[in-house]
Amino acid sequence: MTNKSFFQPVSGFVLPRFAGVASFMRLPVVPPDHPRIDDVQVGLVGAPWDGGTTNRPGPRHAPRALRDASTMIRAQNGVTGVRPFEALNCADLGDVTPNPADLADSLRRMEDFYTDIRARGIIPLTGGGDHLCTLPILRALAKDRPLGMVHFDSHTDLFHSYFDGQMYTHGTPFRRAVEEGLLDPKRVCIIGIRGTAYDSEDRDFARAEGIRVIPIEEFHTRTPVDIMEEARGIVGSGPTYVSYDIDFVDPAFAPGTGTPEVGGPNSWQALEVARLLAGVDIVGADLVEVSPPFDQTGGTAYLGASIMFELLCAMVSAPGLKP
Amino acid sequence: MTNKSFFQPVSGFVLPRFAGVASFMRLPVVPPDHPRIDDVQVGLVGAPWDGGTTNRPGPRHAPRALRDASTMIRAQNGVTGVRPFEALNCADLGDVTPNPADLADSLRRMEDFYTDIRARGIIPLTGGGDHLCTLPILRALAKDRPLGMVHFDSHTDLFHSYFDGQMYTHGTPFRRAVEEGLLDPKRVCIIGIRGTAYDSEDRDFARAEGIRVIPIEEFHTRTPVDIMEEARGIVGSGPTYVSYDIDFVDPAFAPGTGTPEVGGPNSWQALEVARLLAGVDIVGADLVEVSPPFDQTGGTAYLGASIMFELLCAMVSAPGLKP
Amino acid sequence: MTNKSFFQPVSGFVLPRFAGVASFMRLPVVPPDHPRIDDVQVGLVGAPWDGGTTNRPGPRHAPRALRDASTMIRAQNGVTGVRPFEALNCADLGDVTPNPADLADSLRRMEDFYTDIRARGIIPLTGGGDHLCTLPILRALAKDRPLGMVHFDSHTDLFHSYFDGQMYTHGTPFRRAVEEGLLDPKRVCIIGIRGTAYDSEDRDFARAEGIRVIPIEEFHTRTPVDIMEEARGIVGSGPTYVSYDIDFVDPAFAPGTGTPEVGGPNSWQALEVARLLAGVDIVGADLVEVSPPFDQTGGTAYLGASIMFELLCAMVSAPGLKP
Amino acid sequence: MTNKSFFQPVSGFVLPRFAGVASFMRLPVVPPDHPRIDDVQVGLVGAPWDGGTTNRPGPRHAPRALRDASTMIRAQNGVTGVRPFEALNCADLGDVTPNPADLADSLRRMEDFYTDIRARGIIPLTGGGDHLCTLPILRALAKDRPLGMVHFDSHTDLFHSYFDGQMYTHGTPFRRAVEEGLLDPKRVCIIGIRGTAYDSEDRDFARAEGIRVIPIEEFHTRTPVDIMEEARGIVGSGPTYVSYDIDFVDPAFAPGTGTPEVGGPNSWQALEVARLLAGVDIVGADLVEVSPPFDQTGGTAYLGASIMFELLCAMVSAPGLKP
Amino acid sequence: MTNKSFFQPVSGFVLPRFAGVASFMRLPVVPPDHPRIDDVQVGLVGAPWDGGTTNRPGPRHAPRALRDASTMIRAQNGVTGVRPFEALNCADLGDVTPNPADLADSLRRMEDFYTDIRARGIIPLTGGGDHLCTLPILRALAKDRPLGMVHFDSHTDLFHSYFDGQMYTHGTPFRRAVEEGLLDPKRVCIIGIRGTAYDSEDRDFARAEGIRVIPIEEFHTRTPVDIMEEARGIVGSGPTYVSYDIDFVDPAFAPGTGTPEVGGPNSWQALEVARLLAGVDIVGADLVEVSPPFDQTGGTAYLGASIMFELLCAMVSAPGLKP
Amino acid sequence: MTNKSFFQPVSGFVLPRFAGVASFMRLPVVPPDHPRIDDVQVGLVGAPWDGGTTNRPGPRHAPRALRDASTMIRAQNGVTGVRPFEALNCADLGDVTPNPADLADSLRRMEDFYTDIRARGIIPLTGGGDHLCTLPILRALAKDRPLGMVHFDSHTDLFHSYFDGQMYTHGTPFRRAVEEGLLDPKRVCIIGIRGTAYDSEDRDFARAEGIRVIPIEEFHTRTPVDIMEEARGIVGSGPTYVSYDIDFVDPAFAPGTGTPEVGGPNSWQALEVARLLAGVDIVGADLVEVSPPFDQTGGTAYLGASIMFELLCAMVSAPGLKP
Repeated sequence: MTNKSFFQPVSGFVLPRFAGVASFMRLPVVPPDHPRIDDVQVGLVGAPWDGGTTNRPGPRHAPRALRDASTMIRAQNGVTGVRPFEALNCADLGDVTPNPADLADSLRRMEDFYTDIRARGIIPLTGGGDHLCTLPILRALAKDRPLGMVHFDSHTDLFHSYFDGQMYTHGTPFRRAVEEGLLDPKRVCIIGIRGTAYDSEDRDFARAEGIRVIPIEEFHTRTPVDIMEEARGIVGSGPTYVSYDIDFVDPAFAPGTGTPEVGGPNSWQALEVARLLAGVDIVGADLVEVSPPFDQTGGTAYLGASIMFELLCAMVSAPGLKP
Repeated sequence: MTNKSFFQPVSGFVLPRFAGVASFMRLPVVPPDHPRIDDVQVGLVGAPWDGGTTNRPGPRHAPRALRDASTMIRAQNGVTGVRPFEALNCADLGDVTPNPADLADSLRRMEDFYTDIRARGIIPLTGGGDHLCTLPILRALAKDRPLGMVHFDSHTDLFHSYFDGQMYTHGTPFRRAVEEGLLDPKRVCIIGIRGTAYDSEDRDFARAEGIRVIPIEEFHTRTPVDIMEEARGIVGSGPTYVSYDIDFVDPAFAPGTGTPEVGGPNSWQALEVARLLAGVDIVGADLVEVSPPFDQTGGTAYLGASIMFELLCAMVSAPGLKP
Repeated sequence: MTNKSFFQPVSGFVLPRFAGVASFMRLPVVPPDHPRIDDVQVGLVGAPWDGGTTNRPGPRHAPRALRDASTMIRAQNGVTGVRPFEALNCADLGDVTPNPADLADSLRRMEDFYTDIRARGIIPLTGGGDHLCTLPILRALAKDRPLGMVHFDSHTDLFHSYFDGQMYTHGTPFRRAVEEGLLDPKRVCIIGIRGTAYDSEDRDFARAEGIRVIPIEEFHTRTPVDIMEEARGIVGSGPTYVSYDIDFVDPAFAPGTGTPEVGGPNSWQALEVARLLAGVDIVGADLVEVSPPFDQTGGTAYLGASIMFELLCAMVSAPGLKP
Repeated sequence: MTNKSFFQPVSGFVLPRFAGVASFMRLPVVPPDHPRIDDVQVGLVGAPWDGGTTNRPGPRHAPRALRDASTMIRAQNGVTGVRPFEALNCADLGDVTPNPADLADSLRRMEDFYTDIRARGIIPLTGGGDHLCTLPILRALAKDRPLGMVHFDSHTDLFHSYFDGQMYTHGTPFRRAVEEGLLDPKRVCIIGIRGTAYDSEDRDFARAEGIRVIPIEEFHTRTPVDIMEEARGIVGSGPTYVSYDIDFVDPAFAPGTGTPEVGGPNSWQALEVARLLAGVDIVGADLVEVSPPFDQTGGTAYLGASIMFELLCAMVSAPGLKP
Repeated sequence: MTNKSFFQPVSGFVLPRFAGVASFMRLPVVPPDHPRIDDVQVGLVGAPWDGGTTNRPGPRHAPRALRDASTMIRAQNGVTGVRPFEALNCADLGDVTPNPADLADSLRRMEDFYTDIRARGIIPLTGGGDHLCTLPILRALAKDRPLGMVHFDSHTDLFHSYFDGQMYTHGTPFRRAVEEGLLDPKRVCIIGIRGTAYDSEDRDFARAEGIRVIPIEEFHTRTPVDIMEEARGIVGSGPTYVSYDIDFVDPAFAPGTGTPEVGGPNSWQALEVARLLAGVDIVGADLVEVSPPFDQTGGTAYLGASIMFELLCAMVSAPGLKP
Repeated sequence: MTNKSFFQPVSGFVLPRFAGVASFMRLPVVPPDHPRIDDVQVGLVGAPWDGGTTNRPGPRHAPRALRDASTMIRAQNGVTGVRPFEALNCADLGDVTPNPADLADSLRRMEDFYTDIRARGIIPLTGGGDHLCTLPILRALAKDRPLGMVHFDSHTDLFHSYFDGQMYTHGTPFRRAVEEGLLDPKRVCIIGIRGTAYDSEDRDFARAEGIRVIPIEEFHTRTPVDIMEEARGIVGSGPTYVSYDIDFVDPAFAPGTGTPEVGGPNSWQALEVARLLAGVDIVGADLVEVSPPFDQTGGTAYLGASIMFELLCAMVSAPGLKP
């Protein structure tokens, strides 16, 4: 592919990192109608929507906060040396257009956006948005075959419904996804579950479907290396989605989220589990549930952006990348 | 009415104001199924819902923040000497139960709640919630005849629709209310309009319907006494609703709101316009759009609670109170 | 016991967790004059007082902040599966009434409140207040025999006096309690001590009395399981009080406290040590020293509420519960 | 007086204003045992105590916050051109030593400190502390004759007692001062009273004693020039104390205080009323009730320091200054 | 000019205002190498540099914060009805590239950038940056003839030097500009001066040069209409620069700035003075000294963006606009 | 040395820790012209300068914030029992005087200050300031022979230049120091390196010069004891400087810094590595890069002050102390 430099982020040695219009990781902004759109291999997308939130709101503001924080990210992975912006053509595709006052319309708009992205062979890396955003993404990416999934979270998001029959909330996306055949439950691994629970209905469903749930008490007695080896084994070599809820991380490290649960992993573990996805056939990934109104220092957005960078580095070795 | 002391707030001379479970103004909590419910004359209600919000969210958290701040309120109006808790049986009726992920369902639930309240002859004083909450309240209170309204706001909330046909948002409640015959536009006065505008569609509608709009540039050249005299003249002696959007006040005094507009009234003016409603036949009132996630000092909630107290004092002289 | 459902918290599937008047864990409010008071087995109590604070103030505001945060707590322990609200009749007993400007009067008021609670056979779980609150609680609970104690803290609170003879501060409660025969020092275990010290007077007293102090440098080289096994051995099968100062936890996880000490346990360890109290004959417990004015994100109150939930779960297996 | 330069503040043209150990207005620190103490004419004193606070605490932290903010103050009054540090020998006398856990002991310690200051002929300008601090100051300064007083506040602080007989709180100092003969009620003027009230007991006392109270609704219809002319007339040419509670100012301008009342003066009026004290025989002054834990931006401390500078400038023309 | 719609901001009715990559007022980003650059009439520019700051830093972060806040701005002026984006081709030109560690190099880089802008006939509307940024802008815009200036500020910025000969700081730009012949002092009007002063050196210079200074005590006794009539008279019909330091506004309305001075105008006055510049031959304007690290609520950035919108509306009637 | 008590900090048992003018650790302020200066063994110095900062600014405010936080420090090390203020004559030497608008002038002023300190045989313990402050300190302390260094940081600060040839920034001090012969690279150990990187130029330089870099992924698999044993071996018995960048610590524990990198050590590890420097011949030390504008809770300053106390305790056993 020619003209590689178009896709290079602006360096902090040229323009200070606090300067300039803030795009994801200082990449060029290439919306779907941009002439270079078909050269993009990985597209960073914002999903500014939180209509599925049953608790504290705010993730609608996350894409902008993540973009701002992500301007602190530099070119090279400090641990692995990977330089994703040289390895891949990356771009900021802008935001999907939600309807903040209509849940069903928003799901449709998001599915359409990602269907177009997928048709172009672009792997989407989304900055949410609440976790219900993942459902229309999966509807777009898993239209023709179910996907495996590695899911980092403190909640399973496998509940049947809320509030007397509300089927679509940020606590139900993966129940719906399994029901709709978008996920192959045998190839799903959920890591980090903790906090108080209403009941065990979600865990019972997981068990019945063969979804592997690694609760936090198990996480704290094993190593990230060990756990991610298991997770990679579960998803195997098939196409896999990665969904990363920032509330997977302990709220001391990530206070800016709507439904925090204390007792979680620290920031080093948060990065490490993402880094250990290298080699998985990632067909899409997201980082969701950052809530800027509850993120007074901006530290949650910065951790979120750092995790997105690790996910991007993991994608460099994804077998399914378009050439 | 006997047993008056039941309805007295706990005094700060007995239990410090920071202590105790926080109800509105330290009043007894009397939900609709409470044995004393029919003795209540004015019911303070929380509407923890912001599903109509097209911009920054958060008013779902306002009822709790308003309750907390309202524990600073004492028994007597500093200017007029009115002691509303002696004049009226007031109680905290608790919160309406919204469905955070379903707009239509939430509107129904709210309408039902207020229909019941009205049937009991209780005047509701609501702590919102976003401004769309006022629509179901009006549907309940204006079922049989249109109401007049005094409306404090920096926005008219008279827009036709958003986002390609979205009819129910916090920018449209009064357009719907006029269309549905819940408001008599000739008896509606909107005060404080300012800020940038998409266009003049809302103002054109107001003009066509005979709604009186007092923009901020007019407000700043007149006095609150003068303006409120005009407003009282417009609503006359008929039944009147008072809707107070906290963004009427300048954001230096009320930063905790979703769509602030700079250049507004100060806090003294904010109180004074409410105080000057005495004598109006208030059949219901609300204070909406406080957004606690954007109210870092809690000052907005405290101003909101202070305005609610002024509205309550104005109700003492409302002709339509049940005996 | 009949009518169990009275004592069930409101579910977040019925009323969203941000809605409703905030009581501890959404339990019914049952003050001492309530008709159901004698059915209560565990009473959650607020102690809104910080008159013993020699450093940064604020815990007077903690009960309200803890109540607010505790509405995020659900019905079931994520690790053990315990459902305390089904196992026990729990209620929010409201706040003790302090006198913010008179230390001695406040101690008397608190002792009276807890003496009444104890007479009813209710186990109190207190949300402080500063650590001096524990002294009048112990005076009420240990009137007839000394108690054992498990004490989590970064300070021993065993000092003789401050400021030239000030005997009652939040740094002296347990010195007084030992002197007054309220604690059996051989059955006291203090865990987490760290930070700079004025001198070793407190540690010398502990050694002389046989109090076991586990400093943080020892904590960090052992496991919570190992340490709590020792602690349970020290208190044995006798009646035991649990006092949990939130400054036990590292200030990154619990910044909202008056005298933080860096280098402490993380939030997982903070929960785990409480969980490992199961089986101990807990006759009362507290979580103290949360200071909301220094807790900008509310995360400290939320961690505090989460610890209170673990303490409550541990009480489910306390041998001394009334039937 | 020789060696004038000793008493000059460090200039921001020499050492940037954010640099250096923070003393009041960058003045030399001259505690009572310092060799230059008797050359001081006006002594800036910190009173880090809030033991009389019945509501939200924090003024114990104010002296340090005021010192920090006051390093922004320069040498010359922008409006009048007065250069107080050239006109007077000013120094930072350090803090009085309170006992945070003993109210009576603290009152004694403060009275002793100010008795010593007065014996040296130094006019104290105090940065509080809560308003009860003013009582021991008056006990020291008015030992031999009652003083007049100009008092800016949103509360009269003339209450008889709180909490069933608590005589010493920050709501009672001036009731005590009148009873003890420290103030001549005919020469007392209280300005800015507003907010809800428990009852009218304080206002009745004022009326009975001949204290002039200017409530906020009167303030807002007159000018500062007019009001201060009346106030100067009331105190006349006799010795006068000035007590300035920061909650006189509207909480948008001064959020960092424990008992804010909305609807107050703005910052320009706040400065102007202090400036218009020039010519009064000020024998002492204070600025109290700044509560840094509630002052997230530091703006309240900065306004407080600016008011202290105006008070200092007014002192330049005080007839009773020692030569 | 064809293809007008290219220069239209994205409407909030299409994409919610919190969504999308944040450019100034949601305008297209048209850096100097963009094909449409020569169609731009007014260019919004960020100057992310604060190397001249002698006090609290932070304005380097302002351009990004202003862009974010400015996405709340809609298409039409609420008072005048002006629709600037239809009247003029406006675009976001991106940021100038400063060198944060080299003052002289930064001044050069900024001068070069604006020289290029001017050569293209684009009127720059800059979001600073500290006030020293205005010097290189003037060097570019006033190369061939001195300009008049309307300057809103609480400081004159006319000082000779700081720190023993430091000639270039944010307190000296207009001294340098007069010395370099960039400003015609007889056509300069400075409005809002207040706060404590080191001395009168700056005011003496102004007087000697014929610069009109309107101090705050005069401002508060006149009306904005009256003052701006005088200001328009001073600058006359010649080419004029407008420099607006956000610290002109009272810190209750604009806390996020490095050197606040209490006692300033409110937000309505802040807007009104800008609005009253209509008709002046504005050849450039700036809004400087917003300091996001001190702007915890973001309210200062939002006021700043609102002022920039008023400046933009005033430019619509500037005689010197290119066709 | 006689008159030891002069150098004792004020005890919190005498004056509450929130009271009094804030000096470092409540030590006496002994500027270079003070009569007791030559009795000082360890001098605590503030370096209020951040002119080398290429990213988010603010460390200019750190000395004052560190002093404020350090008043929480007591007399005795909780782990080792060391009482440094009895072992050594310590004093607060005040701040170096920077020129905020001139980088080169500031470097000169700092070098001069430390040259004087060194000539008096005082070991400086500096609270920065950004990391470029360390360069002039090394120029003063290493004039006659190169030093070894233990350097805690998430960045190597070994870069050649920024922004097209900018040689002096906070990312380059140790490159310059090696080039100038101030450091013996074979005796330098850098610990904690992490985060994204521009490239490997700094690491290549380290390797070529023989500087030992311990990256975070190695740190997390070893123990502090093990690592510090290696570090002590590298610096050996020669004179050694200790430079501690607060961004070494994870931003959950130290958010208040300009260039945070997630995934770092916790606060216990942060203290432990400093404690394990005992025995090293420390000739100077610093704690830099605390940025108060980004430290909303003050927790970073408090951790910084706690680390400074550990560094001071380590100095007690430094062989090169003057008697």
